[in-house]
Amino acid sequence: MLTTHPFDDDKLREECGIFGVSGSDSAAALVALGLHALQHRGQEAAGITSFDGHHFHTHRAMGHVAGNFDSDSVIRSLPGSVATGHVRYSTTGETALRNVQPLYAELQSGGFAVAHNGNISNAMKLRRDLVRRGSIFQSTSDTETIIHLVATSNYRTLLDRFIDALKQVEGAYSLLVMTPEGMIACRDPLGIRPLVMGRLGDAIIFASETVALDVCGATFERAVEPGELVIVQGTEVRSIHPFKQQAPRPCIFEWVYFSRPDSIVDDHSVYSVRKEIGAQLAAESPVEADLVIPVPDSGVPAAIGYAQASGIPFELGIIRSHYVGRTFISPGDNVRHLGVKLKHNANRALIEGKRVILVDDSIVRGTTSLKIVQMMRDAGAAEVHLRIASPPTKHSCFYGVDTPERTKLLAHKLDIGGMTDFIHADSLAFVSIDGLYKALGEAQRDARPRYCDACFTGDYPTTLTDQDESAEVDQFALLAERVN
Amino acid sequence: MLTTHPFDDDKLREECGIFGVSGSDSAAALVALGLHALQHRGQEAAGITSFDGHHFHTHRAMGHVAGNFDSDSVIRSLPGSVATGHVRYSTTGETALRNVQPLYAELQSGGFAVAHNGNISNAMKLRRDLVRRGSIFQSTSDTETIIHLVATSNYRTLLDRFIDALKQVEGAYSLLVMTPEGMIACRDPLGIRPLVMGRLGDAIIFASETVALDVCGATFERAVEPGELVIVQGTEVRSIHPFKQQAPRPCIFEWVYFSRPDSIVDDHSVYSVRKEIGAQLAAESPVEADLVIPVPDSGVPAAIGYAQASGIPFELGIIRSHYVGRTFISPGDNVRHLGVKLKHNANRALIEGKRVILVDDSIVRGTTSLKIVQMMRDAGAAEVHLRIASPPTKHSCFYGVDTPERTKLLAHKLDIGGMTDFIHADSLAFVSIDGLYKALGEAQRDARPRYCDACFTGDYPTTLTDQDESAEVDQFALLAERVN
Amino acid sequence: MLTTHPFDDDKLREECGIFGVSGSDSAAALVALGLHALQHRGQEAAGITSFDGHHFHTHRAMGHVAGNFDSDSVIRSLPGSVATGHVRYSTTGETALRNVQPLYAELQSGGFAVAHNGNISNAMKLRRDLVRRGSIFQSTSDTETIIHLVATSNYRTLLDRFIDALKQVEGAYSLLVMTPEGMIACRDPLGIRPLVMGRLGDAIIFASETVALDVCGATFERAVEPGELVIVQGTEVRSIHPFKQQAPRPCIFEWVYFSRPDSIVDDHSVYSVRKEIGAQLAAESPVEADLVIPVPDSGVPAAIGYAQASGIPFELGIIRSHYVGRTFISPGDNVRHLGVKLKHNANRALIEGKRVILVDDSIVRGTTSLKIVQMMRDAGAAEVHLRIASPPTKHSCFYGVDTPERTKLLAHKLDIGGMTDFIHADSLAFVSIDGLYKALGEAQRDARPRYCDACFTGDYPTTLTDQDESAEVDQFALLAERVN
Amino acid sequence: MLTTHPFDDDKLREECGIFGVSGSDSAAALVALGLHALQHRGQEAAGITSFDGHHFHTHRAMGHVAGNFDSDSVIRSLPGSVATGHVRYSTTGETALRNVQPLYAELQSGGFAVAHNGNISNAMKLRRDLVRRGSIFQSTSDTETIIHLVATSNYRTLLDRFIDALKQVEGAYSLLVMTPEGMIACRDPLGIRPLVMGRLGDAIIFASETVALDVCGATFERAVEPGELVIVQGTEVRSIHPFKQQAPRPCIFEWVYFSRPDSIVDDHSVYSVRKEIGAQLAAESPVEADLVIPVPDSGVPAAIGYAQASGIPFELGIIRSHYVGRTFISPGDNVRHLGVKLKHNANRALIEGKRVILVDDSIVRGTTSLKIVQMMRDAGAAEVHLRIASPPTKHSCFYGVDTPERTKLLAHKLDIGGMTDFIHADSLAFVSIDGLYKALGEAQRDARPRYCDACFTGDYPTTLTDQDESAEVDQFALLAERVN
Repeated sequence: MLTTHPFDDDKLREECGIFGVSGSDSAAALVALGLHALQHRGQEAAGITSFDGHHFHTHRAMGHVAGNFDSDSVIRSLPGSVATGHVRYSTTGETALRNVQPLYAELQSGGFAVAHNGNISNAMKLRRDLVRRGSIFQSTSDTETIIHLVATSNYRTLLDRFIDALKQVEGAYSLLVMTPEGMIACRDPLGIRPLVMGRLGDAIIFASETVALDVCGATFERAVEPGELVIVQGTEVRSIHPFKQQAPRPCIFEWVYFSRPDSIVDDHSVYSVRKEIGAQLAAESPVEADLVIPVPDSGVPAAIGYAQASGIPFELGIIRSHYVGRTFISPGDNVRHLGVKLKHNANRALIEGKRVILVDDSIVRGTTSLKIVQMMRDAGAAEVHLRIASPPTKHSCFYGVDTPERTKLLAHKLDIGGMTDFIHADSLAFVSIDGLYKALGEAQRDARPRYCDACFTGDYPTTLTDQDESAEVDQFALLAERVN
Repeated sequence: MLTTHPFDDDKLREECGIFGVSGSDSAAALVALGLHALQHRGQEAAGITSFDGHHFHTHRAMGHVAGNFDSDSVIRSLPGSVATGHVRYSTTGETALRNVQPLYAELQSGGFAVAHNGNISNAMKLRRDLVRRGSIFQSTSDTETIIHLVATSNYRTLLDRFIDALKQVEGAYSLLVMTPEGMIACRDPLGIRPLVMGRLGDAIIFASETVALDVCGATFERAVEPGELVIVQGTEVRSIHPFKQQAPRPCIFEWVYFSRPDSIVDDHSVYSVRKEIGAQLAAESPVEADLVIPVPDSGVPAAIGYAQASGIPFELGIIRSHYVGRTFISPGDNVRHLGVKLKHNANRALIEGKRVILVDDSIVRGTTSLKIVQMMRDAGAAEVHLRIASPPTKHSCFYGVDTPERTKLLAHKLDIGGMTDFIHADSLAFVSIDGLYKALGEAQRDARPRYCDACFTGDYPTTLTDQDESAEVDQFALLAERVN
Repeated sequence: MLTTHPFDDDKLREECGIFGVSGSDSAAALVALGLHALQHRGQEAAGITSFDGHHFHTHRAMGHVAGNFDSDSVIRSLPGSVATGHVRYSTTGETALRNVQPLYAELQSGGFAVAHNGNISNAMKLRRDLVRRGSIFQSTSDTETIIHLVATSNYRTLLDRFIDALKQVEGAYSLLVMTPEGMIACRDPLGIRPLVMGRLGDAIIFASETVALDVCGATFERAVEPGELVIVQGTEVRSIHPFKQQAPRPCIFEWVYFSRPDSIVDDHSVYSVRKEIGAQLAAESPVEADLVIPVPDSGVPAAIGYAQASGIPFELGIIRSHYVGRTFISPGDNVRHLGVKLKHNANRALIEGKRVILVDDSIVRGTTSLKIVQMMRDAGAAEVHLRIASPPTKHSCFYGVDTPERTKLLAHKLDIGGMTDFIHADSLAFVSIDGLYKALGEAQRDARPRYCDACFTGDYPTTLTDQDESAEVDQFALLAERVN
Repeated sequence: MLTTHPFDDDKLREECGIFGVSGSDSAAALVALGLHALQHRGQEAAGITSFDGHHFHTHRAMGHVAGNFDSDSVIRSLPGSVATGHVRYSTTGETALRNVQPLYAELQSGGFAVAHNGNISNAMKLRRDLVRRGSIFQSTSDTETIIHLVATSNYRTLLDRFIDALKQVEGAYSLLVMTPEGMIACRDPLGIRPLVMGRLGDAIIFASETVALDVCGATFERAVEPGELVIVQGTEVRSIHPFKQQAPRPCIFEWVYFSRPDSIVDDHSVYSVRKEIGAQLAAESPVEADLVIPVPDSGVPAAIGYAQASGIPFELGIIRSHYVGRTFISPGDNVRHLGVKLKHNANRALIEGKRVILVDDSIVRGTTSLKIVQMMRDAGAAEVHLRIASPPTKHSCFYGVDTPERTKLLAHKLDIGGMTDFIHADSLAFVSIDGLYKALGEAQRDARPRYCDACFTGDYPTTLTDQDESAEVDQFALLAERVN
C-alpha cells in the first residue's frame, strides 16, 4: 500500500529496523523518532514496547510510524525510561498484528520483549521440536522461536537461558531484548545485520543505522560487535562475548541500497561509497553521451560519482512526483497502463535528441528498468545506456531480506547480452564484484571475503537448515489459524 | 458501552454464551444467528472459529454480534461445515481482543479451538505451575489454562489429553472444542452452567439456551448431561462420561434472570417459572394497592404472575425508550443527573395518586431500586411497594457470573428493614428461598439441594482454590503486558 | 440500518421531531437530551444548531442522537444559550447530510436557521418559481423553500418577511426558527403536527412531544396553538396570530402510533387513549379465547385495554430480543428466511394448544401481520384472532408522514374478508372510525371532524398542489447533482 | 497534515489546480490521474464532477487525490464522458467540504458546475450586493459569486449569462464550467493563472499544467489564451473572445516555484528556466566555495545551473527522508525541537570542513533558511553561503496564492544585510528582477512588463476592490455558520 522509493517495485527490501533506549524520561518518544528515521527498513508495520519499572506497555500498528506513533496519547500510553521499537516488512503473506514486533511473553522470570532484525535459518526445525514438547506459538514469526527456547531452557538465570537459546539458532540476528532487569542488545557471530550504539546525555541508545542517532541528537559511540551481548541496566553498560569467535561477514548490500546515504556503516560513509561505485563504473564501463541521469532517488549518489568521474553533465531527466508516499492506484482498465508516469515523468525538453546514461543501484526482476528505458525513448532520447551500481543479483537472501524466488531474478535467467536485449538499452553494464570491494577500500574480493555478498556470489556464510526441509514447512503452514 | 436491559446497571451478569454447529454448509452463518440469540449472555465481545477440513478461520470483534458478524464478507471468511462461537463479558478490566474466544492454539496434533462458558476456580494456581515449566500464555483468560494442560499432557491421544486436563481443573465449565477430527461438547460434573444439544437436518447443534435453537429453526434434542463429553465427527455423535458421578447443581439464577423467558432450561419454561415466582410473592407478601407495575423488561413475567394471583391490574407505569441499545451519555455536568429518564420515564397520567406495587427480579447494589422508587414518587404515586422475585443476593459467584465485591451487595450490608429505608419504599419483600424452589416444582430447599444457589445461601458446591491465594494472583497481574 | 419498534417494517413513520431551547447555559446539551427522547420520530439523521450571540454553530450527523450528540466535545462545539435540533426520516431516497436539519442560510439580516416537522404540499411549485428568479437551492428539502421565500420577500423586517413566506406555503408545518434576534416557534393554521412549550427555570423550551420536556426535567406549559407564532428573545415571550383563523385538524395518528405512550397530546394521555381503543375493540369485536397477546411493543397498551375489558388474561406470547437497536442482517442465502425470529420468538410453552387474540396498532402493507400470525400457528396456537387498534389505513399522507404508495396499502387493495384470508387469521377486526373518536372523548366523527384522519378517510384538510403536478416534479429530480 | 516539498513550511502556495475532459469513456478516471499530477498545486482537498447526459455526479474529499479518488468504486460513481476536477488549498481557515470544488448549482437551465483556479478580487463586494437581493450562499468561496451572477443575470442564454457574470468580476480566474450542453474553459483577460488544452484521441482536455497532459498520455495542443472562452460540446470545439483585449500578465512565480520542473509554461521549459536562473545567480553573485548544495527538492534545478556555471561540484549535502508524504509530529515536549531533522539530515561526512553554497528557490518568512543554515554549521561547514533563485518577496498576492500577511515577509522587514544576519549566513544573495526576466528570454523588465511580478515589485495589474473594504469583510465573517 505504501511505497517510498520511486522505483521500488523492483528492489530488494530490508526487512527490519530496530531501535532501543535505556535511561531516558522520553524513552518512547525517542524510539518513535528513531523508528521514523529507520522507516525505509520496514514500512509495513511498527511497534514499541516500554517498561515503567512495573509493567510492560506495547503499541503495535500496521503502516507507518508517522500517523501511528506520533500522537501524545500514544506516547503517553508507553511510560517508562526503557523502550524498544521495530519496523518491519513481512516475508510471508502473514501481515497480522500478532506478528508485529516487539514480541512479548510472560516467563517465570517476568516479562520478556524482543525486537529482531534478521532471519533465523533453522526456525522451522526448532519450532517443530518445541511444539512436540508442548510449547504453544502465538505467531508465525521466526523470532518467537527464541522466546520459547528461553522459556524452556534448563539454565537458571535469564542471561544463561538467553545465551543457551542463541546457541541453538543459526542465521542472522541483531536483537534488542527487554526484561525487568534491563536491556540486552546483541548481534549474531557473523554480524550479518548492522547494529550501533550511541548516547544522548546519560541514556544509552541502540539503532540499526547511525541516521537514527542523528535524528535524535545522539552521538554515535560504536558498532555492536559481531557475537557481542551488550547488557544495559539503567545507564550502566557491560559487554560479554559468549560465542566462539569468527571472521565477520556484514551484509554488503547495506552500502549498495539498504542504508540511508547519510548513515555511516562500519566506518564507511554510505554516500561516499555510492559515489565511489559510480566512479568505478565510469572507469570500468565508459560511454560517450550527453547527459548522466539518475534513476531517482537511490541512483543519485552513484550518478553524481559517474558524472564527476566522466565529466558528462549530471541532469534531472526524470522528475518524480512528490506524492509517492501514498500510491495512487490508476482506476479503471483503460487507464491502468498510465500508472508509471504518475510516479515519474521524463523531462522531455531536456532529453529530446540526447544520448543519455541512466544510473541505477541494482536490477532485481528488471521490470522497472524496462519501463524507464522506454520512458527515455518516448521522450526522444537518441541513445540510452544503463549503468548499475552493483554486480548482477543472482541469488536469494535468507538473512532477513525480501528477495523474489531465484527464478525471477533477471541476472539468474539471462547473461549481460540477454539482459541488454530484455530492457531494450543501447548498452548495459554492472560494476564488477572487485569494483564493489574497491569502493569499500579493499584491493579486491579475496578468498576470505570480508562481507556477505551471497546475493551476488551464492557464497552463504551459514548453513541453511530450513531450506533443506521445505516440504515439512508447508505442512506446518497447513495448520495455522487464519484470523479474519 | 452497550446496555440492553433497561435497568441493568444493577444486575448480575452472565459472562458467556456458546454455540456450535457440526455438519452444515452454513455453519458459520448459523453460529452467527445463534450467538445473536444469546447476545444477552455476553455483550462485550464475540468470536467465531470455523474449520474447513484444512484450516481454522477465526473472526473476533469487540461489541455485538449484529454489526460484526452479519456481513456476507465476514461469513464467507469463515468457511467449513464445523464452527463454534462465543459471546462474552469480561470479569476483569482486560477487554483486549486476545482474550476474546474461541481461543486457538496449534498443538502437535493440529489446531485446537475452545469456547468456554463458566469459570475455572483454580486457574491461577495451574497457570503458575505451567509457566514454571516453560509454557507461554497468550491471554489472561482462565480458559487458556485448559489448552496448555492439553499441550503438555503425557497422554498420547488428543481425547485422553483433554480428559487429563479437565481432571485437573475445578469450577464451572461448559465447553465446545474444535479439532481437525471433530467437535467435543462437555459440561462440568456438577452441570453448573447450561448446555443443550439440537438438530437441524443432519447438523448437530450445541447452545447455551434453547432460544438459540428456535432462532435457527433447529429442534431441541436434550441437555448435555453434567460430566458428559459429546464427541461429534461430521454428523456422527457418541458420548462418554469420564468423571466420577456427582449429584448435579445447575445454577438457579438462570431461571431468575440470566436465561431468556422463551427458553426452556432443564424442562422448566423460564417464563412460567418467573410467573410462578410472582404468584408465590403475591401469596407470601400481599399488599393493598391499585396497580402492579413491572420494572421493565425483566420484571414483566413476575409482575404478570403477581397481578393474576392478586387480582390487582397490571399496567405499564414505566415507559422505556426504544433506544437503549446504544447508551446515551448525558453531556455536560449540568444535565448529567437527568440520565435515568433517558431510559425510562414514569407514565405520570397513570400513576398520579395511585398505590403501586413495583415488581423486579433481583436487587444487587440497590442503586436502581432507589431511583425507580423515587421516579414513582415524583410522578405522584401515593404509596410504593417493591416486590423482588428472588431471595436476597448476599454472596459472590465464582462460576462465571460477574458479581460485585461482596461488600457492595445491599443484602450483605442491610437487613430487610435497612433495605426498605435505603430505597425509601413503603414496603419491600423478597420471595423466600423455599418459595423459589416451589416455583421450580420442589416442595422446598432441602439438605441436598438440587441447584447451585450460592449467591443466596453461600453454599458453594466446589472448592475455590484461587480465592484462598489471592495475594499471589495480584503478583501475577503485575507482570502482564499492556497492549495500548 | 437502525430499527426500533420490533415489527416496524410495516408501520407508518413520523418524519420528524423538533426541540428548541432559549435562555439556558446548557442549551445544546438540553437539545441533545430532548432529541434523544424524540428519537422515535426520526432515526435517520439528526442536527443541532446553536447561537452564541455572534456565530451560529451546527453539527449534523447521519444516524441516532446517541453516539453522535452525546460527547462533551460535540456539545462544547455548540456554545450559546439558544439552540434548536431536529431528528428526521427522509421521504425520498436522498439521505445526504445537506438535507439534515436545522437548515441554515445567511440572509441580509444575518443567520437564519430552521427546523421543520411536517411537509409543504406546494414546495415543488414554489421552488420552480424561485429558481426561475435566480435562487439557488442547496438541498432537495421542501423546507428550504421557506428560507428562499424569506430571502426574496419585499417586506422590510425579518418577521414580516417570515410571515409573508408562510402565507405562500400550504401543508403541515411546526417550525423552530433561530435568528440573531431570537427564536420563533410556529404551527400551521390547522395545527396538523404537534408542538408544545415548556419551561425549565427561566429557559423556554419547545418540543414535538411532552416526553421530551419530562426527560429534561422541564414543566409542560401549553401547546403552541394552530396558526400561532411564539417569539422568544432570551427568556421573554410574545405571541402573534397572523393567519385567518380556521378550525384545527391535528393528526389523529399521533395517538394511534407516533407519539410515545407517556406523552400527553392535546390534553389526552396517549397511554389512556390506546387502552381505551383496546376497550372499544373488545366491545366492538369480542371473541372467545384463552390469551390476549400484544404485538410488541406498540400493541401493548391496547392489548392491556382489551384484556381488562374482556377479562381474558394478558400474557407475553411473543418475546422480543433486547438487541433490536441494531439490526442483525442474516448472512447467507440459506439462513436469510430465519430473520424474523431474530427479533421475536414465540413463547411456545405458553401458546401451545391455546386460542390467542393478537392486538396490534395498525396494518399498513400486512407483511408483518402475515408473519406473526404464522409464528403463532408454528408455536401450536389452536386459533389466532387479530385485533387492530385503528381503522383500516387506505390513503397516503402528504403532511410529513412516510406512507407507502397507496397501491401498496393492504386496506386499499382488499376488504376485511380479503385481508383475513391474506394474513391467514381465524378472524380480523379493526376499531371503527367512530370508536377511535370515542376513545378521544368524542361522541363520534361528525361532519366537521376535529382531527386530520385522511389516512383512514381520504378527507384531506388542505389542497395538494404538488400532487397535481407530479410530472414536473420528476423533471426536476432529473437535474439534481448526485454527491457520491 | 500533509506536506510535500521538504522545506515547504516557508513557501508561497499555489491555491488550485484544475483539470477537465470532454468526450472520453474514461472521463472521471482521466481527471483523477490529471489531478494527481497537479497535486502540488493544492493538497488540502479535491473534487470531481461528471455528467452522464442526464445527471451530474460529484465526489469531494478532504486530503489527497491518492486514497480518495483512486478506487474503482469512486470512479464508477462518476459516470459520463465529461468530467472536471479541482485540487485546492484554502486561503482562509474554512476547510469544510462545502468549499471544495467543483461547486454545483441547479439553475433554471439545469445543472451548472464550476472549478476555479485564481481569486476574484471584488468577490466580497459582489456577494453583499447579491445577498441584499435575496441570493443565499452555500459556501464562503469567492467562486460561488460567479454562479449567483449567472443565476440572476437578465440575459437569456446561459452563455450570455456567463459572459455577463465574468464582466462583473475582477481578478484572476482560470475556469472550467460544465453544463448539460457542454464544457466551457476560460482564462481571465490578463491570463494571470495558467490553463492549457490537449487532446487524447478524440477527447479534449484542459489542465493547469502540461505535466497533467503527459501523465494521461495526451498531446499538448496550446495554451488557452488570456480572455478566451473555449466552448466544447462532445469533441467539437469553438472559441470566442468576449472581452476587450489587454496585454497579458501571466504569473512569473509559476516558473520560480509553483509549476513542476517537467511542465512547459507558455513555451518555456520550467526546468530550463530554473537552471538558467541558477546560472544568472552564479554570474551576479559568485563566491569561492567547495560544494554547491541544493535545498531539496525545489532548489535542485537552480543548484545544477549554479554548479555548471561556476564549476563548483554539485553534491547532496542534505538528505531528505522519503517519508515526508505524511508529516511525523514529534511527540512530547522534550523531543519537539528535533522535528526538522525528521525531514532532512545533513550529510555530515560530506560537509565537514567544507565551504558550501546552498541554493534555494525563494525566501518567504525566513524560518526555514535559518534552520538549514544552522544544520550546515552543526555538520561542520566552514562557510555557508545562501543563494536564492528569485528576487526578494516583498508583497502579498491577491490572485489565488496563499501569502502570509505582508508584515511577516522577511524581505519586507529587512534589507539584504539584515536578512543575512537573521539567517546567520556568511553571505546571502537573490537573483535580480532583471536577471529573472533574462532567464525567461527577455532583455530586462521594462516599463510594460510581460509578467505579473507583484509579489516582488508591488505592481498589481488589476484593481483590488475588496482590499479597500476589509472592515466590511470582517462583519461578514461574523455571520457565517460554523459546521462542527
